[in-house]
Amino acid sequence: MGNDVLDDVIGWQDGQIVAIDQTALPHQLSVLRLTTVDQLVDAIVRLVVRGAPLLGVAGALGVALAARQAEREGWDAERLEAEVKRIADARPTAVNLRREVLTVAAVLPDGADTVEAAALAVRDTAIEVSKRLSERGADLLVAECGAGPLKVHTHCNTGALACLGWGTALGVIRALRDRGALAHVIADETRPLLQGSRLTAWELGQLGIEHYLAADGAGPFLISQGQSDAVVVGADRVAANGDTANKIGTYPLALAARRAGIPFVVAAPESTIDEATATGADIPLELRADEEVTSFQGTLAAPRGTRALNYAFDVTPADLITAIVTEDRVIRP
Amino acid sequence: MGNDVLDDVIGWQDGQIVAIDQTALPHQLSVLRLTTVDQLVDAIVRLVVRGAPLLGVAGALGVALAARQAEREGWDAERLEAEVKRIADARPTAVNLRREVLTVAAVLPDGADTVEAAALAVRDTAIEVSKRLSERGADLLVAECGAGPLKVHTHCNTGALACLGWGTALGVIRALRDRGALAHVIADETRPLLQGSRLTAWELGQLGIEHYLAADGAGPFLISQGQSDAVVVGADRVAANGDTANKIGTYPLALAARRAGIPFVVAAPESTIDEATATGADIPLELRADEEVTSFQGTLAAPRGTRALNYAFDVTPADLITAIVTEDRVIRP
Repeated sequence: MGNDVLDDVIGWQDGQIVAIDQTALPHQLSVLRLTTVDQLVDAIVRLVVRGAPLLGVAGALGVALAARQAEREGWDAERLEAEVKRIADARPTAVNLRREVLTVAAVLPDGADTVEAAALAVRDTAIEVSKRLSERGADLLVAECGAGPLKVHTHCNTGALACLGWGTALGVIRALRDRGALAHVIADETRPLLQGSRLTAWELGQLGIEHYLAADGAGPFLISQGQSDAVVVGADRVAANGDTANKIGTYPLALAARRAGIPFVVAAPESTIDEATATGADIPLELRADEEVTSFQGTLAAPRGTRALNYAFDVTPADLITAIVTEDRVIRP
Repeated sequence: MGNDVLDDVIGWQDGQIVAIDQTALPHQLSVLRLTTVDQLVDAIVRLVVRGAPLLGVAGALGVALAARQAEREGWDAERLEAEVKRIADARPTAVNLRREVLTVAAVLPDGADTVEAAALAVRDTAIEVSKRLSERGADLLVAECGAGPLKVHTHCNTGALACLGWGTALGVIRALRDRGALAHVIADETRPLLQGSRLTAWELGQLGIEHYLAADGAGPFLISQGQSDAVVVGADRVAANGDTANKIGTYPLALAARRAGIPFVVAAPESTIDEATATGADIPLELRADEEVTSFQGTLAAPRGTRALNYAFDVTPADLITAIVTEDRVIRP
């Protein structure tokens, strides 16, 4: 089943990037047209576009944007290279952004039309990967839990806003819904940045999927009370042994799923699997600013100067993971 | 070690109740003088005073306040009885409030001086119970973990603001500090109402205890990384078999503590143990308003109309609890 708004999270029209402003969600649906590298870099820095796979697509389209701007403004090759590098560097930790910028930049000598085609191919591939992944995940859940309708618990935002196409974990949920195998979704609010409240609840609303928000601390108890048939989450990095880094708050769901005897499934593209990282202990952990925890949407909640331990990601050990589903296979760690 | 501010969370001066306005914390320390039943009932309803044991003391002092107002204003016995009932009913679910109002109201026929003495006895008992409980909990933790200095993880607010005196779990932490056995505290922010950020961080600051806030979803991962030597929490109700209801977000800490092999200790007065409730499955679960999860301090975080599953408490099964410490004993479920 299609959804016009979610199909247009980021796209390419008349030599411009068209993107939903994710900072305005959930209260306002605002679509921006980006015509210059300056505007794109600003949009990436301000999190107008965010989500690792989506940033990859934004980077690919960004190279096409730079090539068109170079034509219009008569940039030399050196200037064009410098502008493309600015896009790649706009978010230093986003490996997908840099990777896809480099992929498309390789064809810059072939001219703007070729660059544009290469960028759109990156976008098409991301969409196609997300749909294959979603269907495979739905197959797995139905095999594990029966045809339902299933109650599914998820965390953070893993849909079109983060990944394009159907997403990862949220794509699995969408595929279940399209098969009539979904009862409803319980989505964690996902503190500190509230991607669950702001983005996942909005996407599920767009898709017409019944859903309930839960405070992050409530998820494990809801699972213990039989309120979920399965937990499905995305991943930021999967180590060679299956240990999985994902948004902070994922690990307690895995502990609760194990105790309740329900499947805990990771849905992530092959590109997330990092064979060079042996185990979760080797995954670097990003410690972010105290203020994300001590305040809530700009309002200070704790005494001024309170310190926080604000890890952006946690690591779920492989032995707690029922299966990792990619676009190509099901891995059982 | 004393602390003037925390000793005065609620008190009695010159026939008046003096109480910290907890709605103004953590940004402002405001002390209110309550001279009439109207003012007290308003303070209870607006959560100026909150926390189950503290509400019991507020109710006891409230009967003394009513007796003094009755003298001043020449109320008859019927009017006095009606005013006392208004205090008992100010928060219908607060059993401690009603219980202590009834305790003190029993001596109303003996006159205002006797009532005042009975109310102050309730307050003194609450303080004495919290200190015995705190010392016994510190004994237990040192026996379980060694003399430290220990890193302790806690949840919600369980200190003087909730309990008077030293509190329960936060009282154990305070007793450890006074023995030189505490390294620092990690306190969960405790969504949706952020008692950890607003109240616990403020109390720990008042006590000069080193502390760090964590998003609720982060607690289990921090425990898995060796960042805590023990988890200590309070309780709202302990069933006969040891299953324990406490603020939502407690259960995932118990799961994480078990996996990490560190003690998970419940600190609660004897009055919290409910022998009439066989197991956790018999404890009624309060489902609160969606808006507590979908917004914060009036700012909507989710799309308008988003539903939530907002259980105020979760139940930790007895088998995950290392020990329950009361003022009189250590119970190992």
